[in-house]
Amino acid sequence: MGLIVAVDAGGTKTDCMVGTERGEVLARAWAGPANLQVSGPQAMRAEILAAVAKARAQLPAGDETFDVLFVGAAGVARPGDREEVSALLKETGVAGKVVVDNDAVIALAGGTLGQPGVVVIAGTGSIAFGVNARGERARAGGWGYVLGDEGSAYDIGRQALASVMRASDGRGEPTALCDAILQHFKITSPDDLVGLVYQKGLGRADIAGLAVLVAEVARKGDRVARRILRKAGTELGAAAASVVRKLGMGSEAVLCVTSGGVFRAGELVRRALVRELAKTCPACEVVEARFPPVVGAYLLGIQEAGSRITGRVVENIEDSLFRPV
Amino acid sequence: MGLIVAVDAGGTKTDCMVGTERGEVLARAWAGPANLQVSGPQAMRAEILAAVAKARAQLPAGDETFDVLFVGAAGVARPGDREEVSALLKETGVAGKVVVDNDAVIALAGGTLGQPGVVVIAGTGSIAFGVNARGERARAGGWGYVLGDEGSAYDIGRQALASVMRASDGRGEPTALCDAILQHFKITSPDDLVGLVYQKGLGRADIAGLAVLVAEVARKGDRVARRILRKAGTELGAAAASVVRKLGMGSEAVLCVTSGGVFRAGELVRRALVRELAKTCPACEVVEARFPPVVGAYLLGIQEAGSRITGRVVENIEDSLFRPV
Repeated sequence: MGLIVAVDAGGTKTDCMVGTERGEVLARAWAGPANLQVSGPQAMRAEILAAVAKARAQLPAGDETFDVLFVGAAGVARPGDREEVSALLKETGVAGKVVVDNDAVIALAGGTLGQPGVVVIAGTGSIAFGVNARGERARAGGWGYVLGDEGSAYDIGRQALASVMRASDGRGEPTALCDAILQHFKITSPDDLVGLVYQKGLGRADIAGLAVLVAEVARKGDRVARRILRKAGTELGAAAASVVRKLGMGSEAVLCVTSGGVFRAGELVRRALVRELAKTCPACEVVEARFPPVVGAYLLGIQEAGSRITGRVVENIEDSLFRPV
Repeated sequence: MGLIVAVDAGGTKTDCMVGTERGEVLARAWAGPANLQVSGPQAMRAEILAAVAKARAQLPAGDETFDVLFVGAAGVARPGDREEVSALLKETGVAGKVVVDNDAVIALAGGTLGQPGVVVIAGTGSIAFGVNARGERARAGGWGYVLGDEGSAYDIGRQALASVMRASDGRGEPTALCDAILQHFKITSPDDLVGLVYQKGLGRADIAGLAVLVAEVARKGDRVARRILRKAGTELGAAAASVVRKLGMGSEAVLCVTSGGVFRAGELVRRALVRELAKTCPACEVVEARFPPVVGAYLLGIQEAGSRITGRVVENIEDSLFRPV
C-alpha cells in the first residue's frame, strides 16, 4: 500500500506529514516559511522538499515510496501558480502524483473533512474561502499585507503599534497597549519603536506576534485593544459573508470553520465574526477547525490516491496524529 | 559676504539651494531620496553631498565658500539623530557651520517665514509639527508606513489599492477606483495587482503616486475615493490639533501651514483638515506654505549666519528663486 505525503506550506512554517490511505499517520516534520508571492517558487520548493526529507527520515527503512504528494501552499492564488509549483515538485520524482492547491483549500478540508463550507483563516495573513455542494469555489481577502489582509494577526499587530503612537502623541485615546508593548520589546519610550521597526528590521512575523498581547490587554478591558479585535472579527465576517453570497449559500446552514492563531487570541474576534456573518447567513454554524491544515492536505491526498474518507479513516488520524499545532 | 547652502533631504528627493544672507538665490540642484530611518546616515550624507556638489557647480568660480549648511532631513526625530548627521557633514568641511534639523522644521519655516505656527506635511509620509511664541516645539504623527503615516500619500494609495481588492471580492462597496487603477497600471484584473505588488516590487513611492489618481476619481464623485480623502484630511487635522494642544495655543489665531503633494490633490483633504482642527482651535487659519521646505532651510540658515529675515530678504528670494517645486 502506497503512502501519502501532505504539506502545508505557510507564511510562518512548512508543516509536513506522511500517512497511509487508511489514515495511519507515520511521520510529521516541519521546515521554514514559504509564501509563493513573497519568496518565489524556488524557495517554496526548497522548504517543501526540506520538510518532506525530514518526514521521510522518520519512516521505517523501505517505506519510502510516496503515491501522492498533496501540497497546500500560501500565495497560490491563480491557476498558473498551481501548475508552476506542481511542475517544480514533479521533476524531483518525490511522488508518483503531485497536486498543489492553495492553503485555504486544505484548511477547509481540515475543518469540514471534505464537506462543503467556508473557512476563515486568520494567521499572519487572512483569507476566506469556500466550496458549495456543486464543487464551486469562491474566495475573499487574502491579498497580503499591502493590498489587504484585514483581520490578520499582522493587521492586528500593526494597528496595535499605530495605536501606541497615536496615544503617545496625543492623536488618539490612551491605551494600556503602550505599557504592554514597551515591556514586550524591553524599551522605555514609544519613540524607540521607530528604530526597532525601520532600522532593526522588526519583521511581519514579529508584528503578527503582537496579536496575542493585544488579546491579553483586551481581556483586561482596554477599549482600544478591544476595538482592534472587534474590527478584525468584523472584517473576517465580511469576507466569509462575501464567499457565502458568491456561492449562493445564504439560506443554507453553512458550516463556517475558523482556522489560525487569531482565533486563539480570545472570544472577541470570533463573536464579531459570528455577528457580521449572521447578517448574510442567519443559519451559519461557526466552529473551530477539527484538524490543522496539514491534515486537510492529507485527507485530500487520500482522495487523490483513490480512497474514500470514511469515519474509520478520521478515527485513525485522531488516534495516530501527533499533537495538532 | 558668505554663502548659505540649504538642503531639504526628503523621502522623495534631496533639494538643495545656495544663496546670500540677503536672500539672493544663486543655485538650486537635486539629488536622490534620503530618509535617515530608512536609508541610514551614510546614504543620507551621500545624497546631501551629491546635491551640494551639483549646486556648487552652478556658482561663479571663487564663490565657493559656504558659511552655513542648514539641512532639514526626513527621519531625523530624536536629538541624537541631529548630532549624528551633523557630525558626519562637519567632517567633510563643506561649510563653516553645520546645522541639522528635521524636515518638519524647515517646512514650517518655509510656511510661516520663521513665525510661530503649525505645519502639516502630507507627502509620501505625514507629520504635524509646531513651534509656539516661547519657542517650544511639539509634533504628532510622522512615524512612517508601519507605525502610522495616516493621511500621507502612501496611506491614501494603499487604501485605494485595498478598496479595489475589497470591491473586487465582494467585501466592499464598488468603486471607480478599480477601473482607474487597472488602467493606470495597464493590467486587466485586480488579481494582477498581487504580482505587481509582491513580485515586481511596486514601491512605496509608486503607491504614494496613486493619491493623484484617487483625487481625480473623487472629483468625479466616487464615494469610496471621497471617503479615503476625507479620512486622510481628518487624520491630518487630528495631528495638527494634538500639536496645538501640546503647545497651549488652542485659544490663539494659530497659523496652520499645509505642505506636500496630498494637499495638491484637491480640496477634500484640506476641508476635512480644517473641520477637524477647528474643533480644537476655532481661530486657526489654514494656509498653503508660501515657500517649499528648502527655502525654509535657507531662511533658518540666514538666521544661523547672524542675519535677520526682513521683508527685503523675502522679496529677494521671491525675485530670484527658481520655480518652486
